[in-house]
Amino acid sequence: MSNPTACLLIIGNEVLSGRTRDANLQFLATRLGEMGIPLREVRVIPDVPGTIIATVNEVRAKFDHVFTTGGIGPTHDDITSECVAAAFGVPWVVHEESRALMAEDYARRDPPVEFNAARLRMATLPLGATPIRCAMVTAPGFTMGNVHVMAGVPRIMQSMFEALAPSLGRGVPVVSRAVHALGVYEGNIAEPLGAVQARFPGLDIGSYPFYRAHGPQGFSGGGVALVAKGTDAAEVEAAAAAITQMLRDLGAAPIQGEPPPV
Amino acid sequence: MSNPTACLLIIGNEVLSGRTRDANLQFLATRLGEMGIPLREVRVIPDVPGTIIATVNEVRAKFDHVFTTGGIGPTHDDITSECVAAAFGVPWVVHEESRALMAEDYARRDPPVEFNAARLRMATLPLGATPIRCAMVTAPGFTMGNVHVMAGVPRIMQSMFEALAPSLGRGVPVVSRAVHALGVYEGNIAEPLGAVQARFPGLDIGSYPFYRAHGPQGFSGGGVALVAKGTDAAEVEAAAAAITQMLRDLGAAPIQGEPPPV
Repeated sequence: MSNPTACLLIIGNEVLSGRTRDANLQFLATRLGEMGIPLREVRVIPDVPGTIIATVNEVRAKFDHVFTTGGIGPTHDDITSECVAAAFGVPWVVHEESRALMAEDYARRDPPVEFNAARLRMATLPLGATPIRCAMVTAPGFTMGNVHVMAGVPRIMQSMFEALAPSLGRGVPVVSRAVHALGVYEGNIAEPLGAVQARFPGLDIGSYPFYRAHGPQGFSGGGVALVAKGTDAAEVEAAAAAITQMLRDLGAAPIQGEPPPV
Repeated sequence: MSNPTACLLIIGNEVLSGRTRDANLQFLATRLGEMGIPLREVRVIPDVPGTIIATVNEVRAKFDHVFTTGGIGPTHDDITSECVAAAFGVPWVVHEESRALMAEDYARRDPPVEFNAARLRMATLPLGATPIRCAMVTAPGFTMGNVHVMAGVPRIMQSMFEALAPSLGRGVPVVSRAVHALGVYEGNIAEPLGAVQARFPGLDIGSYPFYRAHGPQGFSGGGVALVAKGTDAAEVEAAAAAITQMLRDLGAAPIQGEPPPV
């Protein structure tokens, strides 16, 4: 049985213009991998209704889960929620339970927060959506079909994701083992590494050159990180052992696991 | 006349698994904006030939320029170059001039570097491609049609991009002005901000909440960054002035420009 698949849509002009550096991809990639729902594609798209609607419809048909970040605040450029309603062909309507929770929260603040038309937009959801409530804000994210709509602000997104996670189901966790070797060039190990990949066709074996200018003793300088990844933990261990042996045969001094952070 | 458009394909399992945090998107978004070739979409896709080939063909038809990062090294997981050849339906052949330059470089090193089959892959390009030569490595990137294929390692990618940039042509630079206001919530300004956007339909006006825990005096705490962006510099200035006035009318103390980095 193969794992469910996930796609992430990062919605926002600010990432495409370079103003904001996305901080959600790596968090979601890591958490989804741990849950056995590997991320298979990411798209960054602008705040353009036609683009959002078409992209949501394309990827929700292609992947088991679609996660979106960004565009669910109260301002005019926050259009994700109404675009998801349009993508599903359902009305975009005030979600009464969410409205009541927000009204209660706003009234309780000191000074009270005005529940104006802009804030009411955040209680407006595609008809049939299930709200995602998190500890950090009262305005909800939501799940519509297999599309999970979350905030773009990283700490709110993370809080929404953890609230959502128990309902997602799980696949077989993706595990990985890294082997690092200093002073080794990719061009020198490509052939034997390809042979290791051929022995383990069910795994992804990747090669990533690195350079650390000021690492602790034994870890400064250049080298390669060789990473075996897959859902069969025993196979991953066997591949890491094969990579380690291959490096030793070439006269290198491989280190299993991640080197200390620099 | 509207600006040419760009799409970025980030090719690599390591970004999708969360192992590596992409560092190329923000650089390219910023540089392309300055050059008037705004980035309209980004996709992160895995090292899967069918996915790479189909995606390259889809986006090269949709955008004026396509930039790819990653997958042009010597190892078995570096398959971008041969996939671009397949996407264009041309053979993938040794590029003689690149081979000769690499052979010369490798022979000159002390100790000499073996020019083996794996390294020869890096001199193998889609038939008809124009190599991108940079100061940092002898192995080339390349341009095939409107597809610009670059390395994934950020400092090599940046060197390749700067070598490529003069040949890209230019549009009208996208300029932006930011106005920051502390202690202002999006929900309180959404309506007047929407009115400013309506007055400047040719601009993108974005609203981004921020929180700085330990900023210099006057910049710690939460607030909003309001950003006007477009190709008409005078309109952008006028919009920034309108946003500033709007914030003053609400009793806030707006600061034009970016606050000092924290």
